[in-house]
Amino acid sequence: MTVCLRVYPDRDPQLVAVDADIPQVSVLDLGVTRGDGVFEVLTVVDGRPQAVGPHLRRLANSAAMMDLPPVDLELIGQAARRVADAEYRAGQAHELLVKVVVTRGIEDAAPPSCTCWVVAFPNPDHSRERREGIDVVTLDRGFPHDIAARAPWLLAGAKTLSYAVNKAALREAARRGADDVLFTSSDGYVLEGPSSSLLARFGTRMWTPATAQGVLRGTTQGSAFEYLGRRGFATGEALLRAEALEQADALWLASSSRLIAPIRTLDGRALSVDHGLTDAMNEALLARTE
Amino acid sequence: MTVCLRVYPDRDPQLVAVDADIPQVSVLDLGVTRGDGVFEVLTVVDGRPQAVGPHLRRLANSAAMMDLPPVDLELIGQAARRVADAEYRAGQAHELLVKVVVTRGIEDAAPPSCTCWVVAFPNPDHSRERREGIDVVTLDRGFPHDIAARAPWLLAGAKTLSYAVNKAALREAARRGADDVLFTSSDGYVLEGPSSSLLARFGTRMWTPATAQGVLRGTTQGSAFEYLGRRGFATGEALLRAEALEQADALWLASSSRLIAPIRTLDGRALSVDHGLTDAMNEALLARTE
Repeated sequence: MTVCLRVYPDRDPQLVAVDADIPQVSVLDLGVTRGDGVFEVLTVVDGRPQAVGPHLRRLANSAAMMDLPPVDLELIGQAARRVADAEYRAGQAHELLVKVVVTRGIEDAAPPSCTCWVVAFPNPDHSRERREGIDVVTLDRGFPHDIAARAPWLLAGAKTLSYAVNKAALREAARRGADDVLFTSSDGYVLEGPSSSLLARFGTRMWTPATAQGVLRGTTQGSAFEYLGRRGFATGEALLRAEALEQADALWLASSSRLIAPIRTLDGRALSVDHGLTDAMNEALLARTE
Repeated sequence: MTVCLRVYPDRDPQLVAVDADIPQVSVLDLGVTRGDGVFEVLTVVDGRPQAVGPHLRRLANSAAMMDLPPVDLELIGQAARRVADAEYRAGQAHELLVKVVVTRGIEDAAPPSCTCWVVAFPNPDHSRERREGIDVVTLDRGFPHDIAARAPWLLAGAKTLSYAVNKAALREAARRGADDVLFTSSDGYVLEGPSSSLLARFGTRMWTPATAQGVLRGTTQGSAFEYLGRRGFATGEALLRAEALEQADALWLASSSRLIAPIRTLDGRALSVDHGLTDAMNEALLARTE
């Protein structure tokens, strides 16, 4: 099923259960007319939403980059826990997803008021990708790697509802027979996937592309790095040239839904898959208590 | 008021009048969760939608670039005429706008089915901008001018619902004390506004930036060029370097809502405004019979 709560920070009650099968969004809402809003997707294990703090901080950061009013993070966190709990009680699914959406609201409404909802639904089964790995192609994101600081209006590094390019890139990957995309900058640095972060292992060091390049701070990557730190890995952000990936011992894409998926081919070139470390990272992620 | 028709190409009746003040869009619709859809905005004069053919062709082109199923253009055109007529009868507004939205529909719905609606509402009063002109700043769009052919997954030249960057650019313009934006390519060519086309007059020649650069084909610009052709102007598309605009005799931004607005300052530099030609173009546009 799909449990949905509308969030009204300024009304009473502030959280209202609604039927996700009944339309809830106006045709005049800027979320749908302009992709003008922000979102997060949290993974839920046995009813408990994971990495809530990092997700909410990233939501607040995206909203600030979009000049949206401050988001009531405590209320949204409470809503996320409530929908996760209700959906888990209804279906007992081991893994769920919770999506949080905040739009700029109805165009020209007075006073302006964001539209916000939180919805929980089962996570598709990703066990095959986690076990066998995924085929990835690199695609040019079109921007140089230093665009975020120079041109903040391009919203590089904000998780907005304007995801049409990310979806188009995934269709291009499918046309090339691949499962997913690794975006590169126009000047040859690796960035991120359309909805994932890159992890690159060089010996006992694990790097992810620097967020200063307009790359989203990965929540799943962050949890994985905490685990890897406990295992003795050196972890950090780096500027990584695309050709430097040829020297990596292993590569992964990390995301809330699929967790850690090893890259088994990159642009058709076979990579060695580190099954042991992959399984260990996913077990650690699935064992998070929050 | 706001007259709205839902469009169901595969149902009976195919056009259903709905209340725009009641939510019509699901929280699971890819239009709102991913900005995954296309749109057009048509101007309506005395109840008659303008440039319907060019708008519908551009909608079909955007949909094709997004790998959306073919759009029933005849039905959407019929819907546009119906909402324009009903809204005009209700309010007698001289100028209206009609917005057409087609989304990819509910995620993972079986069978997949686009969500489509057409809505009419009064056009805000733009007489001041048409008469006095607008202050415009150039902003880097981040892409080189030849990106569209090289990286079609970036959807340059598709009019998608993912307009967050266009809105952010307008907020940046407001921060700089300006009314609107002229995007430039990362390699120094002028492109278009967030929702407008550039017209640049050099003597008796009138240029607009080449659509091959991932610039939308302007419907209002197209009508204006037809008029200018009848007046003896040479019109066409061109690759225009930003610095070449300093040699232009006059510049305008053309859009469905504001029609032809003269640029009176560009990045703070005063430009001469050709009031006579501006008024003549707007009169010609407002006199279109379709």
